[in-house]
Amino acid sequence: MKPTFHIEPINHSIIPKIKNAIDVKTKPLGALGQLEELALKIAMIQQTTKPKLNNPSLVVFAGDHGIASEGVSKYPKQVTAQMILNFLSGGAAINVFTRQHGINLLIVDAGVDYDFEVYSDQFLNRKARKGTRNMLNENAVTEMEYFQSIQYGKEIVLKFKKEGCNVIGFGEMGIGNTSSASLIMSQILSLPLIDCVGRGTGLDDQGFSKKSKVLRKAKERHQGATTLEAILQAYGGYEIIQMVGAMLQAAEEKMTILIDGFVASAAFLAASKWHAEIKEYTIFCHESAELGHRLLLSKMEVEPLLKLGMRLGEGTGCAVAFPIIQSSVNFLNEMASFESAGVSKDQ
Amino acid sequence: MKPTFHIEPINHSIIPKIKNAIDVKTKPLGALGQLEELALKIAMIQQTTKPKLNNPSLVVFAGDHGIASEGVSKYPKQVTAQMILNFLSGGAAINVFTRQHGINLLIVDAGVDYDFEVYSDQFLNRKARKGTRNMLNENAVTEMEYFQSIQYGKEIVLKFKKEGCNVIGFGEMGIGNTSSASLIMSQILSLPLIDCVGRGTGLDDQGFSKKSKVLRKAKERHQGATTLEAILQAYGGYEIIQMVGAMLQAAEEKMTILIDGFVASAAFLAASKWHAEIKEYTIFCHESAELGHRLLLSKMEVEPLLKLGMRLGEGTGCAVAFPIIQSSVNFLNEMASFESAGVSKDQ
Repeated sequence: MKPTFHIEPINHSIIPKIKNAIDVKTKPLGALGQLEELALKIAMIQQTTKPKLNNPSLVVFAGDHGIASEGVSKYPKQVTAQMILNFLSGGAAINVFTRQHGINLLIVDAGVDYDFEVYSDQFLNRKARKGTRNMLNENAVTEMEYFQSIQYGKEIVLKFKKEGCNVIGFGEMGIGNTSSASLIMSQILSLPLIDCVGRGTGLDDQGFSKKSKVLRKAKERHQGATTLEAILQAYGGYEIIQMVGAMLQAAEEKMTILIDGFVASAAFLAASKWHAEIKEYTIFCHESAELGHRLLLSKMEVEPLLKLGMRLGEGTGCAVAFPIIQSSVNFLNEMASFESAGVSKDQ
Repeated sequence: MKPTFHIEPINHSIIPKIKNAIDVKTKPLGALGQLEELALKIAMIQQTTKPKLNNPSLVVFAGDHGIASEGVSKYPKQVTAQMILNFLSGGAAINVFTRQHGINLLIVDAGVDYDFEVYSDQFLNRKARKGTRNMLNENAVTEMEYFQSIQYGKEIVLKFKKEGCNVIGFGEMGIGNTSSASLIMSQILSLPLIDCVGRGTGLDDQGFSKKSKVLRKAKERHQGATTLEAILQAYGGYEIIQMVGAMLQAAEEKMTILIDGFVASAAFLAASKWHAEIKEYTIFCHESAELGHRLLLSKMEVEPLLKLGMRLGEGTGCAVAFPIIQSSVNFLNEMASFESAGVSKDQ
């Protein structure tokens, strides 16, 4: 059965009240720049002038890709599973940054080509299959796997909601998944593939040329895929599809959604085609150095919070941006007003 | 007596060792972008592959400006003193952000036109005078006050050093001080005034035009001021001059220096004219929305960490950027290596 989502458009009638709460703070009008925009967004989502970020959480969805066997990545496919073990022993970048900021971290095996024997409350087995099929020959994902993956994503967010989380970030790990993301972007937005393909984990010119060639073939093979479902089944991967379900459910639960880099943004693009209302629940944390991300963000008419030249995935953009998002909520809750502090307003 | 500074150029022979420590981490080469550059910088300053940020501190230097009586700001001069009282009761933006990140906060009265009756370990009276003189008529600052202010800044940093601090940010508060900063920038860099003057706390077109006119007069009055000392005495203010002394001493003590927005960057410009070696000890935290800051940063050939459209001063850019700087040190200390985590390197 196809999962459904009920996302309420945000009620805008509270905006003047929130703007006033921001403007009476002891600072020149607008002087906190993007922090003021963030505070407004989160206060709107929560429909209060006193928003709180509770139980901040980050989910890393991991999956392998049949297309990896065509040599589209600088790293061997085994790295997906190896990095998951690295996540679970706390040694990856995302571990460092979530630890630093007290963000809960969950790793989801959405379809990694490895049997993990892991018992950890940071790990969830929601494997659809051991890696997607090779999209050069067939759809990467079957219809049944697609609905199952959407449903898995949905249920994971429901669990976080139950635990009191109201701000959730989404990241990913999967050798080959910038290929899927580029194809999804190109197909949904009807953009030339060349504007959507980058060097992933760091391909050289030769590797990049090979990747581009493989993706052109994949695009030709699936040019008939025009619906959202058909596009996601054509290119996968499982981690991207679970992210789509998770993002949509997070919006249904009126959570603040944090989007990481290129691959997570491609998942968001798909989610926003399904329910455009999701956009108002979402913060774009970081513009990746991966070619295509700048264009993707601009096509979606969103401005990222940070541009630190990172291109790592794992949700690292969300984690690094989190304290700034927290700052926006804190200034709204904690700063004195001109009146309470006895500070003169402008002349 | 004129204070002196002895700033050692950073020894670069450790660079390959630090770069290697960064490159063996479980991430594609360069994938942490600016975080890798930050980690390299701080590790170079501390001459170790295991740097630590100890006792992070932020000093807000405050001062009043004689030029404020010419109507160059949107706010009345009284706001400088009122905001200091706001800082001391914890209600300003900088309080919120330093609290959030565990950064020590010290407010220094470098020359505010108000007698504070305050006893707080967050407050220091280092008043040179109750506001600078009106630069349209005379030098804003006398030679004696200038040397005294440099010395005050120097001693404040020595105190922090003694308490084990090795990372220090500098911010300011002073109605009228973007005027001084613009004139200092224009004079030191031989740039047209029009490229250096902005709207400060939010002047409208009429106010901006008035400010520009006043600053043109000030620049004409002091066109003979060409040495660093003469320029700083011509335009002030006390908070800017104390910052110059503090920044130079921080570099002498091999601390990591965090620079806030436009006014702090103008102070840094002056400090770097005195001792160019300071640059390698410095992180530019935030590009302000104040016109002139972008140009100032590009003339100094530095790239700011954040561009959040803030224009508040108070050191807010340093405080908001601090967790990202901490992240850079954390990944270097805490991430696993490819070898230790058993992750395959690129093919």
